[in-house]
Amino acid sequence: MRGLVYKAQGVVGVEEVPDPAIAEPTDAIVRVTKAGICGSDMHIYNHGDAFGFSPGCRLGHEFVGVVEEVGSEVRRVQPGDKVVSPFWFSCGRCAECHLGHFTSCVKGGCYGFQAFWSAGGDVQGGQSEMIRVPMADGSLDVVPEALADDSHDTTVLPVADVLGTAYHAVSGAGIRPGDSVMVVGDGAVGLLAAHVAGLFGAANVVLTGHHADRLAVGERLGATHVVDTTGEDGAERATALLAELTEGRGPEVVIDAVSSADSIAQAVRDVRPYGTVSWVGMEVFLGAPQVPWDVAFLRNVTIKGGVAPTHAYARSLWPLLIQGRLDPSPVFTHDLPLADAPDGYAAMATRAKGSIKACLTP
Amino acid sequence: MRGLVYKAQGVVGVEEVPDPAIAEPTDAIVRVTKAGICGSDMHIYNHGDAFGFSPGCRLGHEFVGVVEEVGSEVRRVQPGDKVVSPFWFSCGRCAECHLGHFTSCVKGGCYGFQAFWSAGGDVQGGQSEMIRVPMADGSLDVVPEALADDSHDTTVLPVADVLGTAYHAVSGAGIRPGDSVMVVGDGAVGLLAAHVAGLFGAANVVLTGHHADRLAVGERLGATHVVDTTGEDGAERATALLAELTEGRGPEVVIDAVSSADSIAQAVRDVRPYGTVSWVGMEVFLGAPQVPWDVAFLRNVTIKGGVAPTHAYARSLWPLLIQGRLDPSPVFTHDLPLADAPDGYAAMATRAKGSIKACLTP
Repeated sequence: MRGLVYKAQGVVGVEEVPDPAIAEPTDAIVRVTKAGICGSDMHIYNHGDAFGFSPGCRLGHEFVGVVEEVGSEVRRVQPGDKVVSPFWFSCGRCAECHLGHFTSCVKGGCYGFQAFWSAGGDVQGGQSEMIRVPMADGSLDVVPEALADDSHDTTVLPVADVLGTAYHAVSGAGIRPGDSVMVVGDGAVGLLAAHVAGLFGAANVVLTGHHADRLAVGERLGATHVVDTTGEDGAERATALLAELTEGRGPEVVIDAVSSADSIAQAVRDVRPYGTVSWVGMEVFLGAPQVPWDVAFLRNVTIKGGVAPTHAYARSLWPLLIQGRLDPSPVFTHDLPLADAPDGYAAMATRAKGSIKACLTP
Repeated sequence: MRGLVYKAQGVVGVEEVPDPAIAEPTDAIVRVTKAGICGSDMHIYNHGDAFGFSPGCRLGHEFVGVVEEVGSEVRRVQPGDKVVSPFWFSCGRCAECHLGHFTSCVKGGCYGFQAFWSAGGDVQGGQSEMIRVPMADGSLDVVPEALADDSHDTTVLPVADVLGTAYHAVSGAGIRPGDSVMVVGDGAVGLLAAHVAGLFGAANVVLTGHHADRLAVGERLGATHVVDTTGEDGAERATALLAELTEGRGPEVVIDAVSSADSIAQAVRDVRPYGTVSWVGMEVFLGAPQVPWDVAFLRNVTIKGGVAPTHAYARSLWPLLIQGRLDPSPVFTHDLPLADAPDGYAAMATRAKGSIKACLTP
């Protein structure tokens, strides 16, 4: 079959690779109908080994597809099921899984990342025609009938990661109707966090970023205000708008979908006293956040979040997607054949105008 | 009158100082019956200007006493009332006060700390015969009749700071009955956090510190396990005990009553995945915490806490103190005449055996 292989920093290629096969009785083989390129794939692409991703491994931890084959111990899914996998697979049986803490599963891991899994066999990425899913009963979500047709793939695919991650950030932040929320970052997760925040009744959802085209998508998805924070006074302008909207007190919640050394520092300063900063951005792995601890302590700021257990949220997301109250598909600006995957990486890497996120059709 | 004056790093003296007087119509003058020496007074004493405390200012932000005189606009308290003040005074009228976020009051501050208040007049410390309380209606708590006699002062006084701070740390951490809690630090706040954690139904309360005598007090106050973490393998021994108590998963909550550069790092590593680190220690101001961000992010650790709005908790603490379900008085190892206050500072500064906390009787 064909699959996308990580070769070196900035270099990926679609190559002939071995067909996956059942290695453990708890495995499933899934034929991929749509795969996403994630912001964290871009971090691997841009920064290479900083993310512990080995050359030769196959990328892709967002995919939706049809079960082709299951191991002898698989019970919850069967051949023919339309399924989506969370980016982090999990056993479904350990103490952490029982609490919905799937990213802390004792056997769990992320597709393609050899550093992050301890299940048996080889766990490759999903930007390929087929994929082996370990611990299929614990990992896969069966897509509801109403969304099972391939035509809904761009609505379903974000459940695997970016929509589930947005839901993790927003639902964990304790937003109450009438609150003001600031979302930092106009990538797919930031845009979808603004989208989800509306469901929690936020009165003001202020989305900040550096791309006018993406911010426009954010407005369509539900941001009540957007601020292009490009330029020296960018952060100040966002702070000023938030002050104006909140009688000078700042937003109850800041969702940090970037989590860079600077963004979390700004979030701690912008959030109101006793407020919550919820962070889900991967840039935390690129440099230690410069958190102003005295400010956080004096203002009783809560810092929470992390790698999202998206499997925990699928059940909540399905009815909202079916009702159309959530529709994450606008984050996909490119839908490319698998063979053109390198073009998708290049478009996302350069943040070309009009490019937010690409998906691939094998 | 006589009052304790901060002279320089490591030097305090009891001197003749001006009697306080009503400066604003919202003021009260309180005759102090008991004042405490707080761990944060020790930080000022040990580190001097690092805490922004000016030489010549009077120390003491824990006191209980009797109202002598009130300004013309004071309504909630009156002469003759036995009162306790939170260490952080507040107006009781601003948006933050309305939410119980008293330490973020727009006019609030801490007694003696000129850097932390913007109310009119001079706000000196309470280790003195009398004290001017600004914004008395917003700041003071009237002590219930059952505890109003001076003989109960060592039970009431901790409501001002150390018991209220322990309550802040513990109540904000989301402990549920059956949880395991680790408390880092065997100072008064740590001991009382162990005391309070029992009320939240914690199954295991593991108290760690460096003083066998204090840890013994912690056991009497309700710690189910204590670990003297002195020595190179100290942290490891605590981690091992917690692992044994929690099937290897770590405690749901770590209360960090030290908040040093190292302690919060250890807390983030020791707490279980998706757990909460609640920090209330003043050492945060002595050096930036070395938080292992990748660990916090990958494990979804929540970090919360900060300066405690103890005024918010008095109403909850009174019935528990009256019932005797809480009794913080064992943290006082020294009850000295005001004139001997420098001896109290010296005993606490050297962490002399058998010394936890001193209080002063003017």
